[in-house]
Amino acid sequence: MPMETNGKITGAEAVIRTAAAAGIDVCFANPGTTELYLVEALDRCPEIRSVLAVFEGVCTGAADGYARISGKPGLALLHLGPGFANGIANLHNARKAKSPVISLVGDHASWHIAANAPLTSDINTLARPMSVWVHTSTAADTASADMTEAIAQATRLPGGPATLILPGEVQWDTTGQAITRPIFPLPAAPEAGEIERAARALHANSASTAIVLGGSGLRTRGLRAVERIARATGCRVLAPTFPAVQDRGAGLIAPDKIPYAPEPARQVLAPYSTVILAGASEPVAFFGYPNSRSGLCAEGAEIFHLCRATADPASALAALADALSAPAERDVPGAPRPEPPRGALNPLAMCQAVAAAQHEDTIVMDEGATSGFAYYGASAGAPRFTYMALTGGSIGQGLPCAVGAAAAEPGKRVLNLEGDGSSLYTIQALWTAAREKQNLTTVICKNRAYSILRWELERAHITPGAASLAMTGLDRPFFDFVKLAEGFGVEGRAAHTAEELNEALHASLRTPGPMLIEANLE
Amino acid sequence: MPMETNGKITGAEAVIRTAAAAGIDVCFANPGTTELYLVEALDRCPEIRSVLAVFEGVCTGAADGYARISGKPGLALLHLGPGFANGIANLHNARKAKSPVISLVGDHASWHIAANAPLTSDINTLARPMSVWVHTSTAADTASADMTEAIAQATRLPGGPATLILPGEVQWDTTGQAITRPIFPLPAAPEAGEIERAARALHANSASTAIVLGGSGLRTRGLRAVERIARATGCRVLAPTFPAVQDRGAGLIAPDKIPYAPEPARQVLAPYSTVILAGASEPVAFFGYPNSRSGLCAEGAEIFHLCRATADPASALAALADALSAPAERDVPGAPRPEPPRGALNPLAMCQAVAAAQHEDTIVMDEGATSGFAYYGASAGAPRFTYMALTGGSIGQGLPCAVGAAAAEPGKRVLNLEGDGSSLYTIQALWTAAREKQNLTTVICKNRAYSILRWELERAHITPGAASLAMTGLDRPFFDFVKLAEGFGVEGRAAHTAEELNEALHASLRTPGPMLIEANLE
Repeated sequence: MPMETNGKITGAEAVIRTAAAAGIDVCFANPGTTELYLVEALDRCPEIRSVLAVFEGVCTGAADGYARISGKPGLALLHLGPGFANGIANLHNARKAKSPVISLVGDHASWHIAANAPLTSDINTLARPMSVWVHTSTAADTASADMTEAIAQATRLPGGPATLILPGEVQWDTTGQAITRPIFPLPAAPEAGEIERAARALHANSASTAIVLGGSGLRTRGLRAVERIARATGCRVLAPTFPAVQDRGAGLIAPDKIPYAPEPARQVLAPYSTVILAGASEPVAFFGYPNSRSGLCAEGAEIFHLCRATADPASALAALADALSAPAERDVPGAPRPEPPRGALNPLAMCQAVAAAQHEDTIVMDEGATSGFAYYGASAGAPRFTYMALTGGSIGQGLPCAVGAAAAEPGKRVLNLEGDGSSLYTIQALWTAAREKQNLTTVICKNRAYSILRWELERAHITPGAASLAMTGLDRPFFDFVKLAEGFGVEGRAAHTAEELNEALHASLRTPGPMLIEANLE
Repeated sequence: MPMETNGKITGAEAVIRTAAAAGIDVCFANPGTTELYLVEALDRCPEIRSVLAVFEGVCTGAADGYARISGKPGLALLHLGPGFANGIANLHNARKAKSPVISLVGDHASWHIAANAPLTSDINTLARPMSVWVHTSTAADTASADMTEAIAQATRLPGGPATLILPGEVQWDTTGQAITRPIFPLPAAPEAGEIERAARALHANSASTAIVLGGSGLRTRGLRAVERIARATGCRVLAPTFPAVQDRGAGLIAPDKIPYAPEPARQVLAPYSTVILAGASEPVAFFGYPNSRSGLCAEGAEIFHLCRATADPASALAALADALSAPAERDVPGAPRPEPPRGALNPLAMCQAVAAAQHEDTIVMDEGATSGFAYYGASAGAPRFTYMALTGGSIGQGLPCAVGAAAAEPGKRVLNLEGDGSSLYTIQALWTAAREKQNLTTVICKNRAYSILRWELERAHITPGAASLAMTGLDRPFFDFVKLAEGFGVEGRAAHTAEELNEALHASLRTPGPMLIEANLE
């Protein structure tokens, strides 16, 4: 049912009011001249808080984090093709996370395109690879309907980024059209045949069946349902290597992650002749290696989806548990929790320190890369928390995603485990955290190298020469992350021992506002 | 004539050896796992120096600066779609500068694409909007020929970015094929009819004719030729608002720039019923405004190109001067040079301080935006120097372009006039400058706002509300650029008066290595 507006508004305002009507309450923005009418519309629409970033990769990554944590679409405001381009890497991660990120991109007035002014480019083509939907609005009268469609396309399962391009005249022309009320498409219902197929497989041979979770299968509802299934059948439950968002900690089933490296991943999956994908994609190697194959499941394994991509995996898991007559939901006994470590600050100690320090209801963004590999296991027994990982391998997601999560949940603490190399792609996010006084603790895993590359050189049996060593080292000169933090307005501390890290974490988790802790790893 | 290699080499090495054979001696790299064989090839090919950047926008911007200054293609090594994506904004600027930047992008092995691994994306589509040529290699045997074609496509006038995508197996497979010798296509010769048309126009009415320079028309050869034409005919000579690279200073004709804002630009161009484009595009407004038009030349003016886009504008200008029987080349009397300013540090004083301080043979990168508007005029009488501007409006070009220029000319001083907002898109370039111990002086024009946006809000008669003010201000919190510089390993100084800026410039220009000067503007 359309909502009436009082008289005429600009097309830009129609778009922003439609976003507000969808419950979106934050816009992550780095606007330019071609977005000024959208900026003016944000002035007129105080229901949406404008959060400024000084680099567009922060905007799209933050919109992704906001969407993962709030369950609502995340909104990014970007400046023409180049501004959109700077946001693409984190839209790639959002696409792999199936996050409903909506990018609003101002373009020149349509009659100005042919002049080929300096900032003119083909935004539509740029947007296609990382968007589930791209549209260029043609009139102020249809701008609200276009935004409604963007929201529907982004949130219809499986979901993903949508890009709405708004030429100048669409923004500044006025319209008397009513705001279209946004629609959030309902998931498809799980089909009886799908559930029966999974139930038959589990009946036939549950010990050689694994369920890999994804999407809502990793949230409390899905985890509680899959715990019933595992208890009833003894099947294995696995999490993907890089979940978009996962509820974790005390009381919840703690599925093991599929390891990052292909050999241990194949070992984990080898026993399973049946692999049921509950919202997950088929497990594949991160990279294609010479004389290797892409798949990680046992050769000849039967691999199938529990439900269609348009259905809700948590509901499908609940239906499967019922079909199996599984027992009722319960809290599972907690995993042990590490003590705060002492002595040398190595990657394991760093992971234990974070897992030991985190409070209930923390949101953890894990882009710790090689240094953070031990964190997932170490944190299984932590108080209930929400966990996010780097979904598309495009490093530089962590800080922005954490900023977006903090904007979605200002009352919670966000803890970001961040590789030193990874942090540098979007380090500008620190300023937004300072500006917004976010409760955001960033732990920089400072190992002074692109360690993953040195590890992959070894895998490829390449003996690194001068260029290889130079191009994988972050040690000439060293980065001073405390100064970088302070330069962006965030308090910084350096930790060289486990005790110093424990103390810095303790201080940050009890102090409102952001802090960066440089964990100098041995 | 193909060059023989000793036995078999990898496809990656074939590509890198082809680049070296073209005289390319620097590769600006941010590699990942899918580029490891290219990294290994750089180990084996010491003729090419690997320069590491920690963000890909630095690589592409530096490759652009290297190309503008060295006259050779600039080489960037990027990691799959997301790594390429982070480089797009500066490729946009390179495309507008017609700079021959060659991006080498590693992709998954072709058989791994179908697995849709986390880092998989459609690189070819991403690359098209900002490339004059995109190609995905299919075999190690043809990799050298593909690189030769990339070089030819990028350097054939008018020139621009070329993108070569190298799947895993093309990199790691070996080949016995000889390295293809690179070809630099010769410019088309100016045609007699073209030169005659311009000569006729100048004969008919030189006082109402303007020549707008671009490409090689802005280099010493073109400027000396156009000075002959202007002396013979009295025509007006103009430079574009944002030249890619321009020789300037004592002895050379000092064409006025076409102003940035459309109203003064139209005033400058109003007297000219004939506009001859010598390597330039038709002057158009930077943005399309309501009830305005795109073109800046007088309505009804005859606007034409002196020569085809595939011809060399400097040669065409020389041919035109000869056709006009213009007098011989000469040095023109120098414009006055400002004294080092005193007292308050406002934008004009900052521009004067830089123009007063710069030595002969300095390379100046001007991304000073609103604060730097006065620099072009203030520097007309400086000792001979090379000037580069932001060509595509995608801010964040300055620092990377300066890094690339410094890599191309390690013996010269590079002076980068940089907006505070602009600097933050690619601030990571400072680390590469520190790592390479570059003679690079960066002056941050700290006015604590996106001033251009406040100016455009005023133009649009938008009274800024809370959101507009928040989204155009860089003052909550302030950035501490001295700390940011130090965090990246570069010496930083803050100047609050004209005297302090003079002194800091004096110190930096006499001290090898990089320095950042935060000019706190009133």
